[in-house]
Amino acid sequence: MDETTHAPGHQHAGPPYGYTADKDAYLRRLRRIEGQVRGIARMVEEDKYCIDILTQVAAVTKALHAVSLGLVEEHIGHCVVGAANVADPDQRAGEIDSKVKEAAEAIGRLLR
Amino acid sequence: MDETTHAPGHQHAGPPYGYTADKDAYLRRLRRIEGQVRGIARMVEEDKYCIDILTQVAAVTKALHAVSLGLVEEHIGHCVVGAANVADPDQRAGEIDSKVKEAAEAIGRLLR
Amino acid sequence: MDETTHAPGHQHAGPPYGYTADKDAYLRRLRRIEGQVRGIARMVEEDKYCIDILTQVAAVTKALHAVSLGLVEEHIGHCVVGAANVADPDQRAGEIDSKVKEAAEAIGRLLR
Amino acid sequence: MDETTHAPGHQHAGPPYGYTADKDAYLRRLRRIEGQVRGIARMVEEDKYCIDILTQVAAVTKALHAVSLGLVEEHIGHCVVGAANVADPDQRAGEIDSKVKEAAEAIGRLLR
Repeated sequence: MDETTHAPGHQHAGPPYGYTADKDAYLRRLRRIEGQVRGIARMVEEDKYCIDILTQVAAVTKALHAVSLGLVEEHIGHCVVGAANVADPDQRAGEIDSKVKEAAEAIGRLLR
Repeated sequence: MDETTHAPGHQHAGPPYGYTADKDAYLRRLRRIEGQVRGIARMVEEDKYCIDILTQVAAVTKALHAVSLGLVEEHIGHCVVGAANVADPDQRAGEIDSKVKEAAEAIGRLLR
Repeated sequence: MDETTHAPGHQHAGPPYGYTADKDAYLRRLRRIEGQVRGIARMVEEDKYCIDILTQVAAVTKALHAVSLGLVEEHIGHCVVGAANVADPDQRAGEIDSKVKEAAEAIGRLLR
Repeated sequence: MDETTHAPGHQHAGPPYGYTADKDAYLRRLRRIEGQVRGIARMVEEDKYCIDILTQVAAVTKALHAVSLGLVEEHIGHCVVGAANVADPDQRAGEIDSKVKEAAEAIGRLLR
């Protein structure tokens, strides 16, 4: 794969994936999620009511779903679309197949 | 809310909820999840491939589901069953209703 | 298992499970879901837009979740609570364990 | 909405969406799901054990998830890729944005 198709391990300077434009926003959301998980551990330590803990766990799951959805959207918008723009038609078909398949598998893991 | 309001019918001084017996196991799992979330932030920082990040996010979601399921099981086994053992029949019916409703609402939040 | 614990295969006259009180409501909801699935098949036959089909599939999934949640709530409120009311303490502990485990496994299948 | 509004950039007369190639397979799966839902209604009518009903509901939900995933994969592979191949660059950017956004929203509805 070449730079156009966003292969991992590439050496070029610019941000390689769709999400890198929003990198700071993703990092902020992940730090917040990390803090929420730490908060849940604290609730367990302090013997909080199980239902209140469950409410917090559901909130973290929801926040992770939102992060996933953002990553999936950017994978489709950048990696799949990037593959559709590969110049060589033979290579292009293969790239599209591979990126679409990866997206579907990732979504499948989220649905499970 | 304190222990008194949440553990109807129990007379003892010890930890009131089902999960407290496995408290250390829950804390270990939550620390591991916290570490996984930190690992995902590191992947974003290092511009890792979006699909690899999604795989990790799905793993954390799955780990949180497992924690939720454990908490739900213990809520049912302790809080609901505790309510069913309340001596006063009038109070008992109300307690059961309230604990079952709480459980169903918590499960509903997990399914969403 | 005996009648008290709601074993399948029992011969007695009354409705055995929690959901049987709302049997007609459940049947109505299931018929509606069946109709929705038939509607999705019609959309596929008529080459409707994939996103519009997905919207309908998501609606059916949501309706099934609501049915599941109702059944789980009634399992907890009737089968688990029924187990907690078994007279013989030894038998009771086993019944509770078994009903709670069944509930947790069923919820786990819904979360996956 | 008709074919014209939903298959931008495609010039041909044939079926416009990705899933139409597998139309018969989708119809077979949906008929099977319809039969499963009817089977669940029959279980409710016959007072089957709530946990056994829940197991069937979870199986239908899983089958619907598989259908959704197939539709999402074909939306990405055909509609998004089709948008990426629109000749006019200005129209193309708009088409890609709109198809990717639709895909993400559809996936979001499935995750909820």
